Amino acid sequence: MRISLAASQDEVRRHNLATVLRRLHLGGAVSRSELVALTGLNRSTVGALVNELAEQGLVVEQPGASVGVGRPSLVVAVQPRSAVVLAFDFRVDRTVGSVMGLGGDMIERVERARSQSASAPKVSIQQILDMTHELLECVPEETIWVGTGIGVPGIVNAKSGMVSQAPNLGWVDVPFEQLIRTSMQEEFGEIPPIFVSNDADLGVLAEHTRGRAVAARNVIYLSGEVGIGGGVILNGELMSGAGGFGGEVGHMVVNPMGTKCRCGSRGCWETVIGRASILNCISDAESYGQVQDVLDVVSSGDDEVQQRLDSVGRWLGIGLVNLVNIFNPEVIVLGGHLGQIYPAVENIVSHELMNALRASRDQVMVTVASLRDDSTLIGASESAFAPLLNSPLETLSESSTFVAS
Amino acid sequence: MRISLAASQDEVRRHNLATVLRRLHLGGAVSRSELVALTGLNRSTVGALVNELAEQGLVVEQPGASVGVGRPSLVVAVQPRSAVVLAFDFRVDRTVGSVMGLGGDMIERVERARSQSASAPKVSIQQILDMTHELLECVPEETIWVGTGIGVPGIVNAKSGMVSQAPNLGWVDVPFEQLIRTSMQEEFGEIPPIFVSNDADLGVLAEHTRGRAVAARNVIYLSGEVGIGGGVILNGELMSGAGGFGGEVGHMVVNPMGTKCRCGSRGCWETVIGRASILNCISDAESYGQVQDVLDVVSSGDDEVQQRLDSVGRWLGIGLVNLVNIFNPEVIVLGGHLGQIYPAVENIVSHELMNALRASRDQVMVTVASLRDDSTLIGASESAFAPLLNSPLETLSESSTFVAS
Repeated sequence: MRISLAASQDEVRRHNLATVLRRLHLGGAVSRSELVALTGLNRSTVGALVNELAEQGLVVEQPGASVGVGRPSLVVAVQPRSAVVLAFDFRVDRTVGSVMGLGGDMIERVERARSQSASAPKVSIQQILDMTHELLECVPEETIWVGTGIGVPGIVNAKSGMVSQAPNLGWVDVPFEQLIRTSMQEEFGEIPPIFVSNDADLGVLAEHTRGRAVAARNVIYLSGEVGIGGGVILNGELMSGAGGFGGEVGHMVVNPMGTKCRCGSRGCWETVIGRASILNCISDAESYGQVQDVLDVVSSGDDEVQQRLDSVGRWLGIGLVNLVNIFNPEVIVLGGHLGQIYPAVENIVSHELMNALRASRDQVMVTVASLRDDSTLIGASESAFAPLLNSPLETLSESSTFVAS
Repeated sequence: MRISLAASQDEVRRHNLATVLRRLHLGGAVSRSELVALTGLNRSTVGALVNELAEQGLVVEQPGASVGVGRPSLVVAVQPRSAVVLAFDFRVDRTVGSVMGLGGDMIERVERARSQSASAPKVSIQQILDMTHELLECVPEETIWVGTGIGVPGIVNAKSGMVSQAPNLGWVDVPFEQLIRTSMQEEFGEIPPIFVSNDADLGVLAEHTRGRAVAARNVIYLSGEVGIGGGVILNGELMSGAGGFGGEVGHMVVNPMGTKCRCGSRGCWETVIGRASILNCISDAESYGQVQDVLDVVSSGDDEVQQRLDSVGRWLGIGLVNLVNIFNPEVIVLGGHLGQIYPAVENIVSHELMNALRASRDQVMVTVASLRDDSTLIGASESAFAPLLNSPLETLSESSTFVAS
């Protein structure tokens, strides 16, 4: 009985440490009294937990912003350079990488283009390795590297890190986590865990924890990169489906007589609202231009291009009607090029949305990603911080061999 | 401290009673030893719980089926006539009602047609009242009526029992639960609780607890009545969305250039796989015929009708591809006329399903509802049994004034 009681006390302490650290990581610095109110723990417990996290170097007590006269009171804050993660948003045409400090501080962000031909897994991994070198150089000495998170525009088994299918990369059954881990180990020796996830799943997690949808429990994030990905949070939990492959709303057929999709089907939503559809507004051939170019031409008053963009907006609206009727979400967050074009097509989209069933339509807000182009990147960093935020002391002690120098 | 400890013991006892009763209700009669193995409770606890449920008349110990020589051993079984519910499947063109005994025994089932013009809430309620009289006459004396469950083909707020919109009934904002409760109280005095739910939500619950999808954690049920409803179970839980309005897959647009839907939108899935689409295979005008008539003509070798039905099958497949890509379910259960036509279009549907993303496609099974035409009815009865199965003794004592005579 004593052993089980001791284990349970350890469990409670671990849980409480995690609660406090997570609150500081996501919500920023607060006073001990505020921590008492926010966590429901008593004052002496909070004091002991803060001291323990401070001993480990994860948090620090410092004077807060001065309010009125007198000495500012102390607040507890995370030490952004105590523990860091690497985060990668692996896109179809480029890779974005960053070092993120505890608390969500973006210490460094680098972006490297990649041609279609360089998207073979082997070449891609070399690019990630090169960026890892570059990013680790920005990590201060004695900082602990606790994990790496990577978002991929494809169907990922998040447990095994296997990319089952990524139509826009031309990948099938690529053991991405394993390939990266092996290469990183050859280069850096022992490394902390790597988490590979679907890009839009990370996007919705980021917008739900740090972005536009913090207050909502039912959220859809649409990634507009080359194709269209979807991440869905229902009743506060990421929807995964039987194998973690759910949420592929970009491959919802909305136009069955339409054009062939890279997935092999016909008339998928991404064939009518993917990046090529936007670029085609100014050139009938698939262009290598930028979405902003199209918006600039529209701003200049070109009616024909506006009409073509309106047509994309109508398709956007038709698919959103489906998502509203199917999921009854509170918030739909538009990321990537969908967020870029939304202001130019908002009226058209709103008009289409009137076709959604009223009960669900009345509850939904469509909005642009507040983390802008970095929703997936920030979600990737959160996925890599998860073990530290669940078990602070255990993760720190396991990570001690990964101290960047 | 003693009060809180006592409360907690009561809570544990309530939970254990509920566990045992639910097991017997869903799984049928078992021996005490099997109950020990199935519940993880010890032998003396199981004995005390069984005795308590037996004292209340909910269960009985009786000789089981004889195996080999010797006296058959005792099994614990529910008393099907100890507590009953009324269940109604309120459809567009008729109402099905039943008395269900504990354990899921269908004591009586009646079906009454209803013309489109008689679907006004007031007339509908009179029909339900008449059927309630008829059904209660089949309830043995001393039996306790613990609740009433009703499935409706529309968007329902399950908490308030308000039908927000039922396009195929022409209903908007009908406080159905309140109207029925008031009328029943006028007729029968005090009555047990009434639960109004979406028909397909009840269908998926029934197939998940008693039908084809018992072993699955991610299940979609499609009700094929006049329109198409959807009920979705994800990770073992009913998907509800922000207001409980999710799952309206019948109003997923798949054919935007198609015909107007009763919901006001255009090209919804139910415009191409709803009952009228099937009936139109033998007559261009919307017919009052039966789906079976179409299948009979196909069986007789009529190629033209077969081709028209194949077209419905293709649309069925296109929408299923969307559901597979969006939800990554293990099982999709086809109810109503969708289950009826499935054998005749299975090849076409399977061919279309090849367009789904491989990872999700490999995990899904499409099947016909094993509860046949009664999935919603059985789901409605389960919704009405829920309070008894959660808190057996409390629900019984609250229901004692509802003893049918």
